[in-house]
Amino acid sequence: MSLIVQKYGGTSVGSIEKIEQVAEKLIAARKAGHSIVVVVSAMSGETNRLIEMASRISDRPEPREYDVLVSTGEQVTIALLSMALNKRGYAARSYTGSQVHILTDSAHTKARILDIDESRMRADLEQGCIVVVAGFQGRDEHGNITTLGRGGSDTTAVALAAALKADECQIYTDVDGVYTTDPRVVPHARRLDCITFEEMLEMASLGSKVLQIRAVEFAGKYNVNLRVLSSFEEGPGTLITFEDESMERPVISGIAFNRDEAKLTILGVPDQPGVAYQILGPIGEANIEVDMIIQNVGDDGTTDFTFTVNRSDYEKAMSVLQNTAKTLGAREVTGDNAIVKISLVGVGMRSHAGIASTMFKALAKEGINIRMISTSEIKISVVVDEKYLELGVRTLHDAFNLDQASAA
Amino acid sequence: MSLIVQKYGGTSVGSIEKIEQVAEKLIAARKAGHSIVVVVSAMSGETNRLIEMASRISDRPEPREYDVLVSTGEQVTIALLSMALNKRGYAARSYTGSQVHILTDSAHTKARILDIDESRMRADLEQGCIVVVAGFQGRDEHGNITTLGRGGSDTTAVALAAALKADECQIYTDVDGVYTTDPRVVPHARRLDCITFEEMLEMASLGSKVLQIRAVEFAGKYNVNLRVLSSFEEGPGTLITFEDESMERPVISGIAFNRDEAKLTILGVPDQPGVAYQILGPIGEANIEVDMIIQNVGDDGTTDFTFTVNRSDYEKAMSVLQNTAKTLGAREVTGDNAIVKISLVGVGMRSHAGIASTMFKALAKEGINIRMISTSEIKISVVVDEKYLELGVRTLHDAFNLDQASAA
Repeated sequence: MSLIVQKYGGTSVGSIEKIEQVAEKLIAARKAGHSIVVVVSAMSGETNRLIEMASRISDRPEPREYDVLVSTGEQVTIALLSMALNKRGYAARSYTGSQVHILTDSAHTKARILDIDESRMRADLEQGCIVVVAGFQGRDEHGNITTLGRGGSDTTAVALAAALKADECQIYTDVDGVYTTDPRVVPHARRLDCITFEEMLEMASLGSKVLQIRAVEFAGKYNVNLRVLSSFEEGPGTLITFEDESMERPVISGIAFNRDEAKLTILGVPDQPGVAYQILGPIGEANIEVDMIIQNVGDDGTTDFTFTVNRSDYEKAMSVLQNTAKTLGAREVTGDNAIVKISLVGVGMRSHAGIASTMFKALAKEGINIRMISTSEIKISVVVDEKYLELGVRTLHDAFNLDQASAA
Repeated sequence: MSLIVQKYGGTSVGSIEKIEQVAEKLIAARKAGHSIVVVVSAMSGETNRLIEMASRISDRPEPREYDVLVSTGEQVTIALLSMALNKRGYAARSYTGSQVHILTDSAHTKARILDIDESRMRADLEQGCIVVVAGFQGRDEHGNITTLGRGGSDTTAVALAAALKADECQIYTDVDGVYTTDPRVVPHARRLDCITFEEMLEMASLGSKVLQIRAVEFAGKYNVNLRVLSSFEEGPGTLITFEDESMERPVISGIAFNRDEAKLTILGVPDQPGVAYQILGPIGEANIEVDMIIQNVGDDGTTDFTFTVNRSDYEKAMSVLQNTAKTLGAREVTGDNAIVKISLVGVGMRSHAGIASTMFKALAKEGINIRMISTSEIKISVVVDEKYLELGVRTLHDAFNLDQASAA
């Protein structure tokens, strides 16, 4: 008999009818012989309703009180789901984050989980009880209610799975798995049966927003098998796990992209030690996150320096950079906020040469000019003009045969 | 500087605007130099909204889960009220029942408070913080969330006042105090400045539903000065306290009445030891509460036995009594469910003769026939035909000059 942690998000428990459907799914898993811990979010709309009430009182409510308020959303769901299970003759007990001692730091509205006391859940499971836990919340060492930030229910589920050494942590959501790329861009994008944590992190951080990044990191760190499935359809979903030597791995798992990029270039900077810090220091101080960084050294003792930022930070970054340019005596500052990033992701890349050249060739054939290139162990990213996003992604999806199940 | 516990019910915190008004009232008390603990109920309508969701899942939801669900109502209010105080520059911290260790027994939906750990509230108060506590809820020894039953917020307030040895516990409600009788029956009924716990218990149990009886009992037991005031108007309200020797007490404090009475009589029962038990035992076993009991012994070795029950139990009680009559060989069973009870209440009665005769004379003068009489230390109750309720109450209100401030 295996121990499974399941997590259902807000849309999966968005009405009494849907809560009853979740109860049926849990009972099916119970009947299949599994021990079940289930983590639920607030019913969809509920958190917004609570936040709206707070916003009528204050633009900046005290974070401690904000957490007391919004944590009621999940508490309602755990009670209703337990009632639905009890009505069907299945023992179930609900717990708030505090009650199962999900200990967090005191960073209200974005707390991090420090520890979980799983003994109470373990006792319930041994009695055949379904344990129903409120996602997204915990308590700090002083007993104050904390929340993990929006989407934190994924993290709760993974943390419980780690604490209980569960066989699998199943995240039920409104998509049926992780795809080779966004099906809205490539209609024949394919659901992956399996993906590694590293690949998932690259995919997630690049805009495939299926799972909270922190949950994936947590799962990787604590060796929790994570599966993404649909709440509304049957299917195996996608298993996110460690790389298995015996696994026949495709070279490329998927193509991620990010529409929210902007690039800035400072030209003709004197090429001297510390220049990168002098350029990026003020950007960091302005709380702007930098993504890709490229530096080219010219012949004349000067250098050109290019980096990308989130598009919403473009104006601010430009103004900071123009000041820096004056200080450094740079020749010129240029920028472009109509660019996007496309990334090939795959752990197989490590052992396969020629990925980059296949990529560049495919893009060149379609006349897509590459503006920047950046590579890592399991990823190659290119920056191209915004207008080439869809064409670029489709071209690469075809070039690497990602619609076929076992691209070796 | 005195320590005051204030309690605001659901209608007093029924909207964001009203919560902001409560914040203003608390700040006024704070500015007057008081330390403040405030207990709040769920926003009016909220508890019903939650119960309605539960009822869509189950007719008889598990009491443990019911408590998890409905306790969120107060949690929302404490957060919003704390935000409103914080916004105005006043330090405030919210606490659920669990967080301030309101320890109860495990009788879900009707738990009783066993203990309170006031240390955390005390520490906040010493820092000038307004402490905002969720009413109506606590936790049992296993950490399960419990509720005290509807109206339990009054009890929470009194229990906190007792634990903190507060100078006064102020219950804000939609009436401005305790009246000599129901102003809907006697328009010139007068608000009492002061009433004793004993009188208040008699008034409350007889239908003047201003305060929860348990809260009054609790206040009496732990010597908490209790004051009933209006949330919506200024005024001193009514202080419920111990009898003070120096106080000039009116003979009669008020007139209570109960429209929900029914009486049953068993006639010609053999007068032998144990007959009262033989008659009332089966009634108690049927979970019917008996109020007044009268027994008359006749000359022929038989006795007539009359008692009153809540009108909703009349049919059930009649059927039980008819069975008993057969067993005991009684002559006849009669009943009347169109009766009411009117009671004079006042601690001054103890030391003043002639109250009963004044009462009976006043009623006789209006042609009101008395069907039953029952007396206690501080109360005289009469049962009369339903149609005489208003006339009876008005007659007695005038006969004892209750509209005048200091009826000695």
